[in-house]
Amino acid sequence: MPIVRISVAGRNQEQREQIGDAVHAALVAVANVPKDDLFQVFEDPPLRVTPSYLGISHSHDVAIVQVFLNAGRTLDVKKALYARIADGVAAAAGIRRADVIVSLVEVAKENWSFGDGLMSYPPAL
Amino acid sequence: MPIVRISVAGRNQEQREQIGDAVHAALVAVANVPKDDLFQVFEDPPLRVTPSYLGISHSHDVAIVQVFLNAGRTLDVKKALYARIADGVAAAAGIRRADVIVSLVEVAKENWSFGDGLMSYPPAL
Amino acid sequence: MPIVRISVAGRNQEQREQIGDAVHAALVAVANVPKDDLFQVFEDPPLRVTPSYLGISHSHDVAIVQVFLNAGRTLDVKKALYARIADGVAAAAGIRRADVIVSLVEVAKENWSFGDGLMSYPPAL
Repeated sequence: MPIVRISVAGRNQEQREQIGDAVHAALVAVANVPKDDLFQVFEDPPLRVTPSYLGISHSHDVAIVQVFLNAGRTLDVKKALYARIADGVAAAAGIRRADVIVSLVEVAKENWSFGDGLMSYPPAL
Repeated sequence: MPIVRISVAGRNQEQREQIGDAVHAALVAVANVPKDDLFQVFEDPPLRVTPSYLGISHSHDVAIVQVFLNAGRTLDVKKALYARIADGVAAAAGIRRADVIVSLVEVAKENWSFGDGLMSYPPAL
Repeated sequence: MPIVRISVAGRNQEQREQIGDAVHAALVAVANVPKDDLFQVFEDPPLRVTPSYLGISHSHDVAIVQVFLNAGRTLDVKKALYARIADGVAAAAGIRRADVIVSLVEVAKENWSFGDGLMSYPPAL
């Protein structure tokens, strides 16, 4: 169910997919996302990022990872997710952990159709 | 009010707009969107999609349709919307119904300005 | 904390950043966004926009500004934000105020990591 938009600069598609693998592995490991629930959009737009915010400095080599997912993950899960994504993307792509930006956009379970025109997660009656 | 982001691969702009027409027609027909309320962004990014999820198999020729819209559509409306979008996009672009992915992102009515610096749907007092 | 996606056609990167500056200045001036809290994604996708909606006519030269930000801005702040963004983008890029489209997508404070794998705004205990 997550749809993940990954924006990085100066990577080829193989490298982008390695980043995508790292993000997906984090979602599977700590956020209860099924392994076969993979929907990723790779963007390569011009990015502009503050040199420093909240005491963390940024370079031009950032990854912006925007995850659209169902609401309901706990604070602890979200914290673990941020850490895992940063670790994984850093390891996969040589991007500094400081430059891994994550944005979660939560939606209701009923807001997805993953094919065949069906509501993928109809609420239990 | 919806802003719709449509991501498909290997289509020219005329074909993309046929897909856009199908999505818009579905929104108008079942989700009470006014006919002249059309705002679409066409993306052609590298996409990566699971081979199979929830018993539905996917090819490389997918359409990811992300609709940002006001909260409040019922379950039935959402179900009808998914079916209509899948039918319409399949008919318009030869994309398999299994490969039409829809993501709804709901926002508050007050979260839009469609020009002139005005709040487009100010809440009634 | 906002991540801002700015979609405009036919601008070079310098011009896009002038638009980005105007959007950021509006966020800082009326929506309490810190000056060093700047994260922008510049898109140049094909856009399709209604010729007219809610009595406002649109040209092909539109700017679609999608702001992902924390929930909680008041109606008055949102109204002021729309007006400032329209004014600023019009002045910066010669885009008609009628053609400045703004979409806000609100999320929870805990939904951001701006680097180092940390939750940027952990809720107070």
